Amino acid sequence: MSEVSRFGVVEPADLPDDLRERVGAIAEKSGFVPNIFRALGRRPRELRAFLDYHDALMDSNDGLSKAERELVVVATSGANHCTYCIVAHGAILRVRSKDPELADHVGTNPFGAELTGRQRAIVDLALALALDSASFGDDDLDAAREAGLSEDEIWDVGAITALFAMSNRLAHLTALRPNAEFFTMGRQLSG
Amino acid sequence: MSEVSRFGVVEPADLPDDLRERVGAIAEKSGFVPNIFRALGRRPRELRAFLDYHDALMDSNDGLSKAERELVVVATSGANHCTYCIVAHGAILRVRSKDPELADHVGTNPFGAELTGRQRAIVDLALALALDSASFGDDDLDAAREAGLSEDEIWDVGAITALFAMSNRLAHLTALRPNAEFFTMGRQLSG
Amino acid sequence: MSEVSRFGVVEPADLPDDLRERVGAIAEKSGFVPNIFRALGRRPRELRAFLDYHDALMDSNDGLSKAERELVVVATSGANHCTYCIVAHGAILRVRSKDPELADHVGTNPFGAELTGRQRAIVDLALALALDSASFGDDDLDAAREAGLSEDEIWDVGAITALFAMSNRLAHLTALRPNAEFFTMGRQLSG
Amino acid sequence: MSEVSRFGVVEPADLPDDLRERVGAIAEKSGFVPNIFRALGRRPRELRAFLDYHDALMDSNDGLSKAERELVVVATSGANHCTYCIVAHGAILRVRSKDPELADHVGTNPFGAELTGRQRAIVDLALALALDSASFGDDDLDAAREAGLSEDEIWDVGAITALFAMSNRLAHLTALRPNAEFFTMGRQLSG
Amino acid sequence: MSEVSRFGVVEPADLPDDLRERVGAIAEKSGFVPNIFRALGRRPRELRAFLDYHDALMDSNDGLSKAERELVVVATSGANHCTYCIVAHGAILRVRSKDPELADHVGTNPFGAELTGRQRAIVDLALALALDSASFGDDDLDAAREAGLSEDEIWDVGAITALFAMSNRLAHLTALRPNAEFFTMGRQLSG
Amino acid sequence: MSEVSRFGVVEPADLPDDLRERVGAIAEKSGFVPNIFRALGRRPRELRAFLDYHDALMDSNDGLSKAERELVVVATSGANHCTYCIVAHGAILRVRSKDPELADHVGTNPFGAELTGRQRAIVDLALALALDSASFGDDDLDAAREAGLSEDEIWDVGAITALFAMSNRLAHLTALRPNAEFFTMGRQLSG
Repeated sequence: MSEVSRFGVVEPADLPDDLRERVGAIAEKSGFVPNIFRALGRRPRELRAFLDYHDALMDSNDGLSKAERELVVVATSGANHCTYCIVAHGAILRVRSKDPELADHVGTNPFGAELTGRQRAIVDLALALALDSASFGDDDLDAAREAGLSEDEIWDVGAITALFAMSNRLAHLTALRPNAEFFTMGRQLSG
Repeated sequence: MSEVSRFGVVEPADLPDDLRERVGAIAEKSGFVPNIFRALGRRPRELRAFLDYHDALMDSNDGLSKAERELVVVATSGANHCTYCIVAHGAILRVRSKDPELADHVGTNPFGAELTGRQRAIVDLALALALDSASFGDDDLDAAREAGLSEDEIWDVGAITALFAMSNRLAHLTALRPNAEFFTMGRQLSG
Repeated sequence: MSEVSRFGVVEPADLPDDLRERVGAIAEKSGFVPNIFRALGRRPRELRAFLDYHDALMDSNDGLSKAERELVVVATSGANHCTYCIVAHGAILRVRSKDPELADHVGTNPFGAELTGRQRAIVDLALALALDSASFGDDDLDAAREAGLSEDEIWDVGAITALFAMSNRLAHLTALRPNAEFFTMGRQLSG
Repeated sequence: MSEVSRFGVVEPADLPDDLRERVGAIAEKSGFVPNIFRALGRRPRELRAFLDYHDALMDSNDGLSKAERELVVVATSGANHCTYCIVAHGAILRVRSKDPELADHVGTNPFGAELTGRQRAIVDLALALALDSASFGDDDLDAAREAGLSEDEIWDVGAITALFAMSNRLAHLTALRPNAEFFTMGRQLSG
Repeated sequence: MSEVSRFGVVEPADLPDDLRERVGAIAEKSGFVPNIFRALGRRPRELRAFLDYHDALMDSNDGLSKAERELVVVATSGANHCTYCIVAHGAILRVRSKDPELADHVGTNPFGAELTGRQRAIVDLALALALDSASFGDDDLDAAREAGLSEDEIWDVGAITALFAMSNRLAHLTALRPNAEFFTMGRQLSG
Repeated sequence: MSEVSRFGVVEPADLPDDLRERVGAIAEKSGFVPNIFRALGRRPRELRAFLDYHDALMDSNDGLSKAERELVVVATSGANHCTYCIVAHGAILRVRSKDPELADHVGTNPFGAELTGRQRAIVDLALALALDSASFGDDDLDAAREAGLSEDEIWDVGAITALFAMSNRLAHLTALRPNAEFFTMGRQLSG
């Protein structure tokens, strides 16, 4: 477990100006540079499109809350056994949900984790598209609507699931290592 | 099969200027507006990121040829049973490979289609990441290297596979219908 | 993709009289000798039984229409990734259904293709038996009956599914190549 | 477990002459009418083709011995969880192999049963085609050839596997009950 | 198939006193020493815990009858393709249910075997936990309750399923051979 | 997530003397009563056998180190999506391996986690038996032997895998909730 990525990394300082700035802003806020950006830095155009897609879907409380968006990420990454995304977005989910255990429940067993009705509907919709997309159909949408999800919320769940189908595979392609900080972020650490 | 997308469509004329121009250029070249753009037009920021990611990976003959890039798309979309991507990119593969049958072979059975050694190595790498990404590992990379793929070619196969893991799920989410033109494009139609 | 079959072929002229006549009649009607007959010609007794079984089930409009019978074939062959059967029977389905797109929808994604209620019931019954026959049961039959299928129609769907479970495996065994003619037959080819 | 078949049965006396005679001969030899013939009797043309196909493949000691042919049947039926075929052909395998335990080993676990090298090669080839036919390929054939199987023996293993892919599904379609006699036939019953 | 276990056996005479006595009592009752005890004898502490767990769950008619307990064993061992457990506990199921065919039905196809409503509910609950435990949930329990199972009966089905998830894997680990006696025990052998 | 177990709990004080003492000793050492003992307390005989089996396999540094034994537990529980066992034994693995990240790597992706050669051989052997026990065979044992594992170490890996095949299912049966303490135990918590 010595490397960050099978294909090496590019440090923010060596990225084109716009990306150096964007990644720098994230690093300042987090206190460290998430390894995904160092790995994708090898291909600036791809990193730029990745950041654009990510920001279009994850930085919003319209409809789905930010915590619910992270819930989709952790559940589908759990189903895909993607360590980087489970650990990194598990940390963000802990922070956003203020729940220190939810991420471990959903990341290890998205299929059976006990959730609220709305959370379960979100996760079930996401898993159907992540794992069995060929038979994804109107039944899946109807179940989501019955749980109260709007058309835009359904799109968001689906699009985030799709984005992390990509993201999980990029992490598996590069054998991406989570930053050490993610493992403990957001845990209630009382002595 | 009456609709293009479960979530409706946005015609190019109703897109923001930059997107109207980009999609317009594609439509001019193809002779029609591929339905994926009309469906994703519902979310201009996502469509823009999608186009950027697509262009970064698909419009190049560096390393992988354009036909080989389409081979990755058709093989992984075949494994995911994504009708839109098999039909649309099958058409492009016919055009780019100048082979009227290859796309049907790979789209219906990527696992067993008879291919050249290099094509088989590309497809095997793509399928490993598309379908069994949790155990994707050094063995998969070594097999690709032995078949002569460079590190950048391996990245391209992996990143295209990842992009269409997303794209397939967007098509399944929206029940996206392929344009009629794609079904016959590039077939050798000699009476 | 240079060979028709891994085990070589026997041309109609070299078959026993009765088979030469039967295959000749098919060839006259189609304009070419479908490769399955040239491959199975290696074993005349098996070819004869194959033709008999095929004719007993496929050449009838009693109950299931001929197009519906081909729908079963294309759907189950799609689920089995059998290129020969998808391409050859996809062509026949285009001709019999007078629908140039249905076969590609069902052949690439039988699980999610949009169909009429009766078509979906037929395909669901076929897929249950093709893919998960151990748990095939009264629930499957009841669903078919509710969609209006008679006991004889249910038998036909089941028996055609069974016949092509065999046929698909014979095609995979021999790496059977579809005739070039099948790829374009029945497509609406307007310039 | 009160019925022989979901679709009722036709007794030999009510079959067309040629079939009454063929099934009668089998019944005379076995001491009872195997239920498969009573169930398929509902469709004489299909029963006739079934018998023809069966006889073309199973009644021969050329290349594969009759016991080896039954081994293919029991192994693939075991993988398909087909009770009728496991019990009926398990009985025949006990008789033909003169081994009272082999059928139970192969019928319950074809994947791991301890076999001779030649038996294991036969079973592995059969299972590859029965369960994963989409990726069936030259590697499977080469392994069989290395174990000493001839091209005709490979065809036989493949064709028997294909025939019972059909047969298993017919038994599942009809919920076919094995005759009581099959359960004990060929067991070494001391005391 | 020459060995009883990959790791050798320990005969009862060579076991610690308490185990020699316990296994001796079983052997006296059965007329032979079931091979599982000879194989696990390699590790007396593990054999002792195994016997304790087994006795706590299997030797009772409280709630679930002894035959129903064996039904759980044969069904889940069938799903796991565990030859030793199917053959040995199939024999016990024949004896306890006084039904000479039930064990072969359930052992070869637990998914589709025709059973009484209560038996089917027991088997469905067991299979859900045996094969898809990650998504095991309240739906599974509710179905069992609707079929009339008490909380203690549900626990018993679940705990027996769990015990034989272990037992099946110990048999696969050791390639454990069933004693010859088990194959015929409890069969109605009328000449 | 309000309950510890679907079937309620029994507090140590209410257990038979020997169990109260054993569980009390564990609680004293851990600082809390692991919930598995409170859930299994409903059935003292089963809890006693469970503890005996556990102690026979997990409390030893003979051959496999205690950390390696926990590695088997976390890997197979990860493959089975068993939240309780991943979280509880992940904590113990962190303590015993003195590695704060290993458990998250193996628990989220046992298939692809980067490990030492010996660790990978242990995990591969365990996964083969946990997930695909029907085809578990000499190849799996030979691979383990080549990596230097002794016969007793192979037995231990197999028996621990088997024990947690049971344990995972008991946790899924009861919807067992991990104690809060396990989530943070053994993490390097600086600041």
